[in-house]
Amino acid sequence: MPGVDCGAVHNRWDTGRTEAFSDGVFAFAITLLVLDINVPLSEFNHLWHGIAHQWPAYLGYATSFLTVGGIWMVHHGIFRRVQYANRRVMNINLLLLMAVAFLPFPTRLVAEAIRHTEAERAAVIFYGGSLLVISLLYSALWRAVTSDRSLLKPDVSATEVDAIARATTPNLAFYLAVILLALIAPK
Amino acid sequence: MPGVDCGAVHNRWDTGRTEAFSDGVFAFAITLLVLDINVPLSEFNHLWHGIAHQWPAYLGYATSFLTVGGIWMVHHGIFRRVQYANRRVMNINLLLLMAVAFLPFPTRLVAEAIRHTEAERAAVIFYGGSLLVISLLYSALWRAVTSDRSLLKPDVSATEVDAIARATTPNLAFYLAVILLALIAPK
Amino acid sequence: MPGVDCGAVHNRWDTGRTEAFSDGVFAFAITLLVLDINVPLSEFNHLWHGIAHQWPAYLGYATSFLTVGGIWMVHHGIFRRVQYANRRVMNINLLLLMAVAFLPFPTRLVAEAIRHTEAERAAVIFYGGSLLVISLLYSALWRAVTSDRSLLKPDVSATEVDAIARATTPNLAFYLAVILLALIAPK
Amino acid sequence: MPGVDCGAVHNRWDTGRTEAFSDGVFAFAITLLVLDINVPLSEFNHLWHGIAHQWPAYLGYATSFLTVGGIWMVHHGIFRRVQYANRRVMNINLLLLMAVAFLPFPTRLVAEAIRHTEAERAAVIFYGGSLLVISLLYSALWRAVTSDRSLLKPDVSATEVDAIARATTPNLAFYLAVILLALIAPK
Repeated sequence: MPGVDCGAVHNRWDTGRTEAFSDGVFAFAITLLVLDINVPLSEFNHLWHGIAHQWPAYLGYATSFLTVGGIWMVHHGIFRRVQYANRRVMNINLLLLMAVAFLPFPTRLVAEAIRHTEAERAAVIFYGGSLLVISLLYSALWRAVTSDRSLLKPDVSATEVDAIARATTPNLAFYLAVILLALIAPK
Repeated sequence: MPGVDCGAVHNRWDTGRTEAFSDGVFAFAITLLVLDINVPLSEFNHLWHGIAHQWPAYLGYATSFLTVGGIWMVHHGIFRRVQYANRRVMNINLLLLMAVAFLPFPTRLVAEAIRHTEAERAAVIFYGGSLLVISLLYSALWRAVTSDRSLLKPDVSATEVDAIARATTPNLAFYLAVILLALIAPK
Repeated sequence: MPGVDCGAVHNRWDTGRTEAFSDGVFAFAITLLVLDINVPLSEFNHLWHGIAHQWPAYLGYATSFLTVGGIWMVHHGIFRRVQYANRRVMNINLLLLMAVAFLPFPTRLVAEAIRHTEAERAAVIFYGGSLLVISLLYSALWRAVTSDRSLLKPDVSATEVDAIARATTPNLAFYLAVILLALIAPK
Repeated sequence: MPGVDCGAVHNRWDTGRTEAFSDGVFAFAITLLVLDINVPLSEFNHLWHGIAHQWPAYLGYATSFLTVGGIWMVHHGIFRRVQYANRRVMNINLLLLMAVAFLPFPTRLVAEAIRHTEAERAAVIFYGGSLLVISLLYSALWRAVTSDRSLLKPDVSATEVDAIARATTPNLAFYLAVILLALIAPK
């Protein structure tokens, strides 16, 4: 909203409400895929078969749930060490939430592409790319938090700061490898 | 999210945010079925009849709401005795939320199967199986919480621990009985 | 969930999590109707006309939002005077949430019935009936809260208890009048 | 809900639950647009092309997310300076949430109008008008909060009050300019 910057008056925010708002977005994003699971009425004559036939949707649901759940735990792991947020942390967190709430879309693509072999590779790369963006944003978030030591809770040790910095960095290599693999591999 | 394990730095989590996140998932899962209730425009000439004709959808909505509401109360009953969560508790809780957010799907199947007699048995067994999974996960959650006494609040007595352990165990027999019944019974 | 009753071990619950869960259900129910607002692509050649033509959907959205918002304020008004909940309060609250999350359905019926004159009366009575149920549940909730004085916060005066009891009771007459009016009135 | 006014007994409300409820509405409104992003199955033979072809939906999603995110930050910026809310603040906040939860609709119109040139102008003006309403409501909210100094937290300085008043006012000119521009400009 251009022209309104109430935060700038003093640039330090308690994190309680940011966590609550983020939790709402995570909770919505994580449950959304259940809407895609459905057995068409035409398959009710053989319902067990109809239920079994939906396995790509279950796979998509479970993958998405565990992925977003894991992403939420990282979010929790970061923010429980944070005392105050500044404008930069707030902005990166918003971009991160935008990427997380977007995940149901590539997940659905992957689930649907399982039955369209030509589309599989594109869908998997697109999904991997979305996870890569989330990874990069976590890395940026932790750098933003640690660049001003007063934002961290006093009891967070330097060892912990380094451990989390290391934990959020190497994903880059990991996801690039996955994407490369998907590009090269047949199937 | 592979490679990121911020929690491992010290394996003890406050439960406030886990409860907030879980509440979001529960709230979403519990209200989702209202989206399935609809009177087609073609029945607006006899709206009372059209409203009445939707009774399986109301039944599905009410059943799902009370079931998920009851499951939420058990969740609340467990977590208000918990002081800290460890990684194992967090993971089991995530699986539990995945099973809860999945419930709208089998509920919808049961509601739709009421008008397709061949499908009824399969739908009820599938629904019962989903509840059974939730039961087993609650049992695992309570075992995980009580296996490390320091995770519990200090004022939780050994009697209480046993009472809840008993309360979360016998469901296995109950649900297996329901499923067996559905398998044997005609209709 | 039959057989599990963790709350019964001691029958006194903090209200923080109940409020958070209720807020999630309210927030979902209140925003749901925006999904029903849509201009069909065929009207994009005359978009202003297309936007204007959707007025029953706006009316439904605004009515529902203000109604659910008002209901939320009553909920807030009750629970900020409550210190602990017992099993009976929890159960009535769950029924209340079930009725609130159901409201988007009768609201949509009213919005759609505006263009089907035969259906209008039925839709309005159904909507009024839904509000009546919510009213009765609030009345029951306040009676449950005040029947055990130790559930209330110590600073709530007897005058306040009576004022809220009065405020939640007379709705019965009001809603019955509305429904009777809708039954008698032409149009 | 007519006839029930529990708040009137004493007209002063803690803001914790209002923030939680608002966060739920914001979280739902901000993630809703991901439901509009979809690649039709007919484009799965050329999935990259199909993904690229959805760019207006991505644009709508990103615009809406950042806009609602910015609006949330202003909300947070106001309420973290508020100690108590009165009935007037509660009502304005409810209207504000109604306008925020409405935003997915004009956003979707703009995204769809990108491919219908005649409709573009109307869609942009409608979207700008919605933002203008939100701006005006923020202005009214801050006036309501500051008209009773006891509602503000004690440590909020007069300078801060003025700075926020200034920050929430000039939007009027800005949005009117945008709307005028859209009316005059070709395309």
